[in-house]
Amino acid sequence: MGNRIITISRQFGSGGRTVGKELAAKLGIPCYDAEIITKIAEESGFDPEYVKERGEYANGGSWLAHAFSDRDRNGHSYQDDLWAIQRKIILELAEKGPCVIVGRCADYILRDNPDCLRVFIHADMESRAKRIVEQYGERSDAPAKRLKDKDKHRAAYYQFYTEMKWGAVENYHVTLNSGVLGIEKCVDILAGLY
Amino acid sequence: MGNRIITISRQFGSGGRTVGKELAAKLGIPCYDAEIITKIAEESGFDPEYVKERGEYANGGSWLAHAFSDRDRNGHSYQDDLWAIQRKIILELAEKGPCVIVGRCADYILRDNPDCLRVFIHADMESRAKRIVEQYGERSDAPAKRLKDKDKHRAAYYQFYTEMKWGAVENYHVTLNSGVLGIEKCVDILAGLY
Repeated sequence: MGNRIITISRQFGSGGRTVGKELAAKLGIPCYDAEIITKIAEESGFDPEYVKERGEYANGGSWLAHAFSDRDRNGHSYQDDLWAIQRKIILELAEKGPCVIVGRCADYILRDNPDCLRVFIHADMESRAKRIVEQYGERSDAPAKRLKDKDKHRAAYYQFYTEMKWGAVENYHVTLNSGVLGIEKCVDILAGLY
Repeated sequence: MGNRIITISRQFGSGGRTVGKELAAKLGIPCYDAEIITKIAEESGFDPEYVKERGEYANGGSWLAHAFSDRDRNGHSYQDDLWAIQRKIILELAEKGPCVIVGRCADYILRDNPDCLRVFIHADMESRAKRIVEQYGERSDAPAKRLKDKDKHRAAYYQFYTEMKWGAVENYHVTLNSGVLGIEKCVDILAGLY
Protein backbone atom coordinates (compact mmCIF):
# COMPACT_ATOMS: atom_id res chain seq x y z
CA MET A 1 0.00 0.00 0.00
CA GLY A 2 1.39 3.36 -1.01
CA ASN A 3 0.27 6.79 0.01
CA ARG A 4 -2.98 7.06 1.82
CA ILE A 5 -5.32 9.81 0.80
CA ILE A 6 -8.65 10.71 2.32
CA THR A 7 -10.97 12.85 0.22
CA ILE A 8 -13.84 14.60 1.93
CA SER A 9 -16.85 15.86 0.01
CA ARG A 10 -19.45 17.64 2.08
CA GLN A 11 -22.70 19.50 2.19
CA PHE A 12 -22.32 23.17 3.03
CA GLY A 13 -22.65 23.66 6.78
CA SER A 14 -22.05 20.00 7.64
CA GLY A 15 -18.68 20.75 9.21
CA GLY A 16 -16.95 18.53 6.65
CA ARG A 17 -14.03 20.93 6.38
CA THR A 18 -13.57 20.86 10.15
CA VAL A 19 -13.70 17.06 10.10
CA GLY A 20 -10.96 17.13 7.45
CA LYS A 21 -8.74 19.51 9.39
CA GLU A 22 -9.14 17.70 12.72
CA LEU A 23 -8.64 14.34 11.06
CA ALA A 24 -5.44 15.48 9.35
CA ALA A 25 -4.16 16.97 12.64
CA LYS A 26 -4.90 13.71 14.45
CA LEU A 27 -3.10 11.66 11.79
CA GLY A 28 -0.23 14.11 11.47
CA ILE A 29 -0.73 14.59 7.75
CA PRO A 30 -1.53 17.74 5.74
CA CYS A 31 -5.05 18.89 4.90
CA TYR A 32 -5.45 20.68 1.56
CA ASP A 33 -8.20 23.14 0.92
CA ALA A 34 -7.42 26.87 0.77
CA GLU A 35 -3.85 25.78 0.08
CA ILE A 36 -5.02 24.28 -3.17
CA ILE A 37 -6.72 27.50 -4.20
CA THR A 38 -3.50 29.43 -3.65
CA LYS A 39 -1.47 26.87 -5.51
CA ILE A 40 -3.92 26.86 -8.38
CA ALA A 41 -3.72 30.63 -8.51
CA GLU A 42 0.08 30.65 -8.48
CA GLU A 43 0.55 28.02 -11.14
CA SER A 44 -2.15 29.29 -13.39
CA GLY A 45 -1.35 32.94 -13.15
CA PHE A 46 -4.99 33.46 -12.31
CA ASP A 47 -5.70 36.12 -9.78
CA PRO A 48 -6.34 34.35 -6.43
CA GLU A 49 -9.54 36.34 -6.00
CA TYR A 50 -10.70 35.19 -9.41
CA VAL A 51 -10.11 31.60 -8.44
CA LYS A 52 -11.91 32.02 -5.14
CA GLU A 53 -14.86 33.63 -6.81
CA ARG A 54 -15.21 31.24 -9.69
CA GLY A 55 -14.14 27.98 -8.10
CA GLU A 56 -16.46 25.55 -6.48
CA TYR A 57 -17.66 28.14 -4.00
CA ALA A 58 -18.97 30.60 -6.53
CA ASN A 59 -22.00 32.50 -5.31
CA GLY A 60 -25.07 33.34 -7.27
CA GLY A 61 -24.44 30.81 -9.99
CA SER A 62 -21.51 32.73 -11.44
CA TRP A 63 -19.37 29.64 -12.01
CA LEU A 64 -22.16 28.02 -13.95
CA ALA A 65 -22.79 31.16 -15.94
CA HIS A 66 -19.06 31.39 -16.69
CA ALA A 67 -18.86 27.71 -17.52
CA PHE A 68 -21.20 28.39 -20.43
CA SER A 69 -20.28 31.95 -21.28
CA ASP A 70 -16.67 33.18 -21.54
CA ARG A 71 -15.95 30.41 -24.02
CA ASP A 72 -13.71 30.85 -27.02
CA ARG A 73 -14.51 29.50 -30.48
CA ASN A 74 -13.51 26.00 -29.44
CA GLY A 75 -15.92 26.06 -26.51
CA HIS A 76 -13.02 26.43 -24.09
CA SER A 77 -13.38 28.55 -20.94
CA TYR A 78 -11.35 29.85 -18.01
CA GLN A 79 -13.37 27.39 -15.93
CA ASP A 80 -11.94 24.53 -17.95
CA ASP A 81 -8.38 25.82 -17.47
CA LEU A 82 -9.01 26.07 -13.77
CA TRP A 83 -10.40 22.54 -13.71
CA ALA A 84 -7.39 21.16 -15.60
CA ILE A 85 -4.90 22.88 -13.28
CA GLN A 86 -6.79 21.86 -10.17
CA ARG A 87 -6.87 18.26 -11.39
CA LYS A 88 -3.12 18.29 -12.02
CA ILE A 89 -2.39 19.70 -8.56
CA ILE A 90 -4.58 17.16 -6.80
CA LEU A 91 -2.89 14.28 -8.64
CA GLU A 92 0.51 15.69 -7.64
CA LEU A 93 -0.47 16.16 -4.00
CA ALA A 94 -1.75 12.59 -3.83
CA GLU A 95 1.53 11.42 -5.34
CA LYS A 96 3.55 13.44 -2.84
CA GLY A 97 2.30 11.71 0.29
CA PRO A 98 -0.59 10.91 2.61
CA CYS A 99 -3.05 13.78 3.03
CA VAL A 100 -6.65 14.84 3.47
CA ILE A 101 -8.21 16.76 0.56
CA VAL A 102 -11.48 18.58 1.17
CA GLY A 103 -13.77 19.24 -1.78
CA ARG A 104 -12.53 20.11 -5.28
CA CYS A 105 -13.92 16.90 -6.78
CA ALA A 106 -10.80 15.18 -5.43
CA ASP A 107 -12.81 11.98 -4.95
CA TYR A 108 -13.50 11.89 -8.68
CA ILE A 109 -10.02 12.98 -9.70
CA LEU A 110 -8.48 10.22 -7.57
CA ARG A 111 -11.11 7.60 -8.38
CA ASP A 112 -8.54 5.19 -9.82
CA ASN A 113 -6.18 5.50 -6.85
CA PRO A 114 -6.59 2.32 -4.78
CA ASP A 115 -5.21 4.04 -1.67
CA CYS A 116 -7.87 6.71 -1.58
CA LEU A 117 -10.70 6.62 0.95
CA ARG A 118 -13.70 8.58 -0.31
CA VAL A 119 -15.84 10.23 2.37
CA PHE A 120 -19.02 12.30 2.24
CA ILE A 121 -20.14 14.37 5.24
CA HIS A 122 -23.74 15.56 5.41
CA ALA A 123 -26.26 16.65 8.01
CA ASP A 124 -29.91 17.53 8.32
CA MET A 125 -30.97 21.02 7.35
CA GLU A 126 -31.54 22.09 10.96
CA SER A 127 -28.02 21.23 12.18
CA ARG A 128 -26.48 22.86 9.13
CA ALA A 129 -28.53 26.04 9.52
CA LYS A 130 -27.47 26.24 13.17
CA ARG A 131 -23.85 25.68 12.20
CA ILE A 132 -23.60 28.30 9.46
CA VAL A 133 -25.12 30.93 11.70
CA GLU A 134 -23.13 30.06 14.84
CA GLN A 135 -19.81 28.95 13.38
CA TYR A 136 -19.51 30.61 10.01
CA GLY A 137 -21.16 33.83 11.15
CA GLU A 138 -23.72 33.76 8.35
CA ARG A 139 -26.88 35.82 8.52
CA SER A 140 -29.57 34.17 10.58
CA ASP A 141 -32.41 34.86 8.18
CA ALA A 142 -33.53 32.13 5.81
CA PRO A 143 -30.43 29.92 6.23
CA ALA A 144 -32.27 26.96 4.68
CA LYS A 145 -32.59 28.77 1.38
CA ARG A 146 -28.88 29.65 1.31
CA LEU A 147 -27.94 26.07 2.18
CA LYS A 148 -30.05 24.75 -0.68
CA ASP A 149 -28.48 27.25 -3.08
CA LYS A 150 -24.96 26.30 -2.02
CA ASP A 151 -25.70 22.58 -2.33
CA LYS A 152 -27.25 23.13 -5.71
CA HIS A 153 -24.17 24.92 -7.04
CA ARG A 154 -21.80 22.39 -5.54
CA ALA A 155 -23.79 19.55 -7.06
CA ALA A 156 -23.96 21.27 -10.46
CA TYR A 157 -20.20 21.94 -10.47
CA TYR A 158 -19.48 18.35 -9.55
CA GLN A 159 -21.80 16.94 -12.16
CA PHE A 160 -20.54 19.27 -14.88
CA TYR A 161 -16.93 18.12 -14.53
CA THR A 162 -17.35 14.55 -13.36
CA GLU A 163 -20.58 13.38 -14.98
CA MET A 164 -21.33 11.74 -11.67
CA LYS A 165 -23.98 12.58 -9.11
CA TRP A 166 -22.66 14.53 -6.13
CA GLY A 167 -23.64 12.95 -2.82
CA ALA A 168 -24.70 9.64 -4.41
CA VAL A 169 -23.97 6.87 -1.93
CA GLU A 170 -22.19 4.61 -4.45
CA ASN A 171 -19.46 7.23 -5.01
CA TYR A 172 -18.25 7.02 -1.41
CA HIS A 173 -16.73 4.42 0.87
CA VAL A 174 -18.15 6.11 3.95
CA THR A 175 -20.87 8.72 4.43
CA LEU A 176 -21.53 10.20 7.87
CA ASN A 177 -24.27 12.43 9.24
CA SER A 178 -22.25 14.89 11.33
CA GLY A 179 -25.44 16.44 12.73
CA VAL A 180 -26.39 13.22 14.50
CA LEU A 181 -22.94 11.73 15.13
CA GLY A 182 -21.05 14.92 15.94
CA ILE A 183 -17.76 16.14 14.49
CA GLU A 184 -15.55 14.29 16.99
CA LYS A 185 -17.16 10.94 16.31
CA CYS A 186 -16.74 11.46 12.56
CA VAL A 187 -13.06 12.21 13.07
CA ASP A 188 -12.65 9.10 15.26
CA ILE A 189 -14.31 6.79 12.73
CA LEU A 190 -12.19 8.07 9.86
CA ALA A 191 -8.97 7.99 11.87
CA GLY A 192 -9.81 4.37 12.69
CA LEU A 193 -10.00 3.58 8.98
CA TYR A 194 -6.66 5.11 8.13
CA MET B 1 -31.72 7.70 26.24
CA GLY B 2 -33.99 4.71 25.91
CA ASN B 3 -33.63 1.65 23.73
CA ARG B 4 -31.05 1.70 21.06
CA ILE B 5 -31.99 0.34 17.71
CA ILE B 6 -29.77 -0.07 14.67
CA THR B 7 -31.53 -0.47 11.33
CA ILE B 8 -29.54 -1.83 8.43
CA SER B 9 -30.66 -1.34 4.84
CA ARG B 10 -28.46 -2.94 2.25
CA GLN B 11 -27.83 -3.68 -1.37
CA PHE B 12 -28.24 -7.33 -2.27
CA GLY B 13 -24.89 -9.10 -1.99
CA SER B 14 -23.26 -6.39 0.13
CA GLY B 15 -23.18 -8.63 3.21
CA GLY B 16 -25.40 -6.19 5.09
CA ARG B 17 -27.28 -9.03 6.74
CA THR B 18 -24.01 -10.56 7.93
CA VAL B 19 -22.92 -7.16 9.27
CA GLY B 20 -26.22 -6.98 11.18
CA LYS B 21 -25.87 -10.47 12.65
CA GLU B 22 -22.23 -10.04 13.66
CA LEU B 23 -22.93 -6.59 15.07
CA ALA B 24 -25.82 -7.87 17.17
CA ALA B 25 -23.73 -10.80 18.41
CA LYS B 26 -20.92 -8.42 19.36
CA LEU B 27 -23.32 -6.12 21.22
CA GLY B 28 -25.24 -8.98 22.81
CA ILE B 29 -28.58 -7.84 21.41
CA PRO B 30 -31.03 -9.59 19.06
CA CYS B 31 -30.95 -9.26 15.28
CA TYR B 32 -34.33 -9.44 13.54
CA ASP B 33 -34.68 -10.57 9.98
CA ALA B 34 -36.06 -14.00 9.15
CA GLU B 35 -37.56 -13.91 12.64
CA ILE B 36 -39.71 -11.02 11.54
CA ILE B 37 -41.01 -12.94 8.55
CA THR B 38 -42.09 -15.77 10.82
CA LYS B 39 -43.70 -13.41 13.27
CA ILE B 40 -45.50 -11.58 10.49
CA ALA B 41 -46.76 -14.89 9.18
CA GLU B 42 -47.96 -16.04 12.60
CA GLU B 43 -49.71 -12.86 13.54
CA SER B 44 -51.27 -12.28 10.17
CA GLY B 45 -52.41 -15.80 9.53
CA PHE B 46 -50.63 -15.53 6.19
CA ASP B 47 -48.90 -18.65 5.06
CA PRO B 48 -45.17 -18.22 5.82
CA GLU B 49 -44.33 -19.23 2.26
CA TYR B 50 -46.67 -16.56 0.96
CA VAL B 51 -44.96 -13.94 3.08
CA LYS B 52 -41.54 -15.05 1.98
CA GLU B 53 -42.55 -14.98 -1.64
CA ARG B 54 -44.32 -11.65 -1.61
CA GLY B 55 -42.25 -9.74 0.92
CA GLU B 56 -39.34 -7.54 0.11
CA TYR B 57 -37.46 -10.42 -1.49
CA ALA B 58 -40.05 -11.18 -4.10
CA ASN B 59 -38.55 -12.41 -7.34
CA GLY B 60 -39.62 -11.53 -10.82
CA GLY B 61 -41.51 -8.43 -9.80
CA SER B 62 -44.31 -10.41 -8.16
CA TRP B 63 -44.64 -8.11 -5.17
CA LEU B 64 -45.02 -5.11 -7.42
CA ALA B 65 -47.51 -6.89 -9.62
CA HIS B 66 -49.46 -7.92 -6.52
CA ALA B 67 -49.22 -4.44 -5.07
CA PHE B 68 -51.27 -3.22 -8.01
CA SER B 69 -53.39 -6.26 -8.77
CA ASP B 70 -55.15 -8.32 -6.07
CA ARG B 71 -56.81 -5.15 -4.81
CA ASP B 72 -60.37 -5.05 -3.56
CA ARG B 73 -62.87 -2.33 -4.40
CA ASN B 74 -61.22 0.04 -1.95
CA GLY B 75 -57.84 -0.40 -3.58
CA HIS B 76 -56.67 -2.52 -0.65
CA SER B 77 -54.32 -5.48 -1.17
CA TYR B 78 -52.69 -8.32 0.74
CA GLN B 79 -49.46 -6.38 0.28
CA ASP B 80 -50.93 -3.53 2.27
CA ASP B 81 -52.01 -5.87 5.07
CA LEU B 82 -48.54 -7.32 5.13
CA TRP B 83 -47.02 -3.86 5.27
CA ALA B 84 -49.31 -2.80 8.14
CA ILE B 85 -48.53 -5.91 10.18
CA GLN B 86 -44.82 -5.64 9.49
CA ARG B 87 -44.87 -2.01 10.56
CA LYS B 88 -46.67 -2.87 13.81
CA ILE B 89 -44.19 -5.65 14.62
CA ILE B 90 -41.16 -3.45 13.98
CA LEU B 91 -42.55 -0.71 16.24
CA GLU B 92 -43.16 -3.32 18.96
CA LEU B 93 -39.68 -4.81 18.63
CA ALA B 94 -38.10 -1.37 18.89
CA GLU B 95 -40.22 -0.74 21.99
CA LYS B 96 -39.19 -4.05 23.54
CA GLY B 97 -35.48 -3.33 23.72
CA PRO B 98 -32.20 -2.69 21.89
CA CYS B 99 -31.84 -4.66 18.67
CA VAL B 100 -30.58 -4.72 15.11
CA ILE B 101 -33.22 -4.83 12.38
CA VAL B 102 -32.12 -5.72 8.87
CA GLY B 103 -34.22 -4.50 5.95
CA ARG B 104 -38.03 -4.31 5.99
CA CYS B 105 -38.03 -0.51 5.69
CA ALA B 106 -37.33 -0.40 9.43
CA ASP B 107 -35.35 2.81 8.95
CA TYR B 108 -38.46 4.49 7.61
CA ILE B 109 -40.84 2.91 10.12
CA LEU B 110 -38.62 4.08 13.01
CA ARG B 111 -37.74 7.45 11.47
CA ASP B 112 -39.20 9.37 14.42
CA ASN B 113 -37.37 7.29 17.02
CA PRO B 114 -34.46 9.42 18.30
CA ASP B 115 -32.60 6.32 19.53
CA CYS B 116 -32.41 4.72 16.13
CA LEU B 117 -29.18 4.65 14.12
CA ARG B 118 -29.90 4.26 10.41
CA VAL B 119 -27.26 2.42 8.40
CA PHE B 120 -26.92 1.56 4.70
CA ILE B 121 -24.45 -1.08 3.52
CA HIS B 122 -23.47 -1.16 -0.12
CA ALA B 123 -20.61 -2.38 -2.30
CA ASP B 124 -19.40 -2.21 -5.85
CA MET B 125 -20.91 -4.61 -8.35
CA GLU B 126 -17.77 -6.77 -8.54
CA SER B 127 -17.59 -7.48 -4.78
CA ARG B 128 -21.30 -8.20 -4.66
CA ALA B 129 -21.17 -10.53 -7.65
CA LYS B 130 -18.29 -12.41 -6.03
CA ARG B 131 -20.19 -12.61 -2.76
CA ILE B 132 -23.49 -13.93 -4.10
CA VAL B 133 -21.73 -16.64 -6.03
CA GLU B 134 -19.30 -17.67 -3.26
CA GLN B 135 -21.37 -17.08 -0.14
CA TYR B 136 -24.98 -17.33 -1.19
CA GLY B 137 -24.35 -20.12 -3.68
CA GLU B 138 -26.03 -18.25 -6.54
CA ARG B 139 -25.44 -19.19 -10.14
CA SER B 140 -22.23 -17.78 -11.50
CA ASP B 141 -23.65 -16.64 -14.83
CA ALA B 142 -24.63 -13.01 -15.23
CA PRO B 143 -24.62 -12.10 -11.51
CA ALA B 144 -24.58 -8.38 -12.37
CA LYS B 145 -27.98 -8.63 -14.01
CA ARG B 146 -29.48 -10.45 -11.03
CA LEU B 147 -27.99 -7.90 -8.63
CA LYS B 148 -29.50 -5.05 -10.60
CA ASP B 149 -32.89 -6.77 -10.65
CA LYS B 150 -32.79 -7.36 -6.90
CA ASP B 151 -31.79 -3.77 -6.18
CA LYS B 152 -34.50 -2.53 -8.48
CA HIS B 153 -37.21 -4.49 -6.67
CA ARG B 154 -35.90 -3.52 -3.27
CA ALA B 155 -35.83 0.15 -4.27
CA ALA B 156 -39.32 -0.03 -5.77
CA TYR B 157 -40.76 -1.71 -2.66
CA TYR B 158 -39.13 0.89 -0.42
CA GLN B 159 -40.33 3.80 -2.50
CA PHE B 160 -43.86 2.40 -2.82
CA TYR B 161 -44.39 2.25 0.93
CA THR B 162 -42.17 5.06 2.18
CA GLU B 163 -42.27 7.64 -0.59
CA MET B 164 -38.56 8.04 0.03
CA LYS B 165 -35.64 7.08 -2.16
CA TRP B 166 -33.92 3.85 -1.13
CA GLY B 167 -30.18 4.26 -0.70
CA ALA B 168 -30.30 8.09 -0.72
CA VAL B 169 -27.51 9.36 1.51
CA GLU B 170 -29.72 11.76 3.47
CA ASN B 171 -31.87 8.90 4.80
CA TYR B 172 -28.96 7.37 6.69
CA HIS B 173 -26.65 8.33 9.53
CA VAL B 174 -23.90 6.09 8.23
CA THR B 175 -23.33 4.40 4.87
CA LEU B 176 -20.45 1.99 4.41
CA ASN B 177 -18.95 0.28 1.38
CA SER B 178 -18.43 -3.25 2.67
CA GLY B 179 -16.58 -4.24 -0.51
CA VAL B 180 -13.75 -1.82 0.25
CA LEU B 181 -13.87 -1.74 4.05
CA GLY B 182 -14.68 -5.41 4.66
CA ILE B 183 -17.40 -6.87 6.88
CA GLU B 184 -15.33 -6.82 10.08
CA LYS B 185 -14.47 -3.14 9.78
CA CYS B 186 -18.12 -2.28 9.19
CA VAL B 187 -19.08 -4.20 12.33
CA ASP B 188 -16.35 -2.43 14.33
CA ILE B 189 -17.44 1.04 13.22
CA LEU B 190 -21.09 0.39 14.05
CA ALA B 191 -20.28 -1.23 17.39
CA GLY B 192 -18.24 1.89 18.19
CA LEU B 193 -21.29 4.05 17.56
CA TYR B 194 -23.59 2.04 19.80
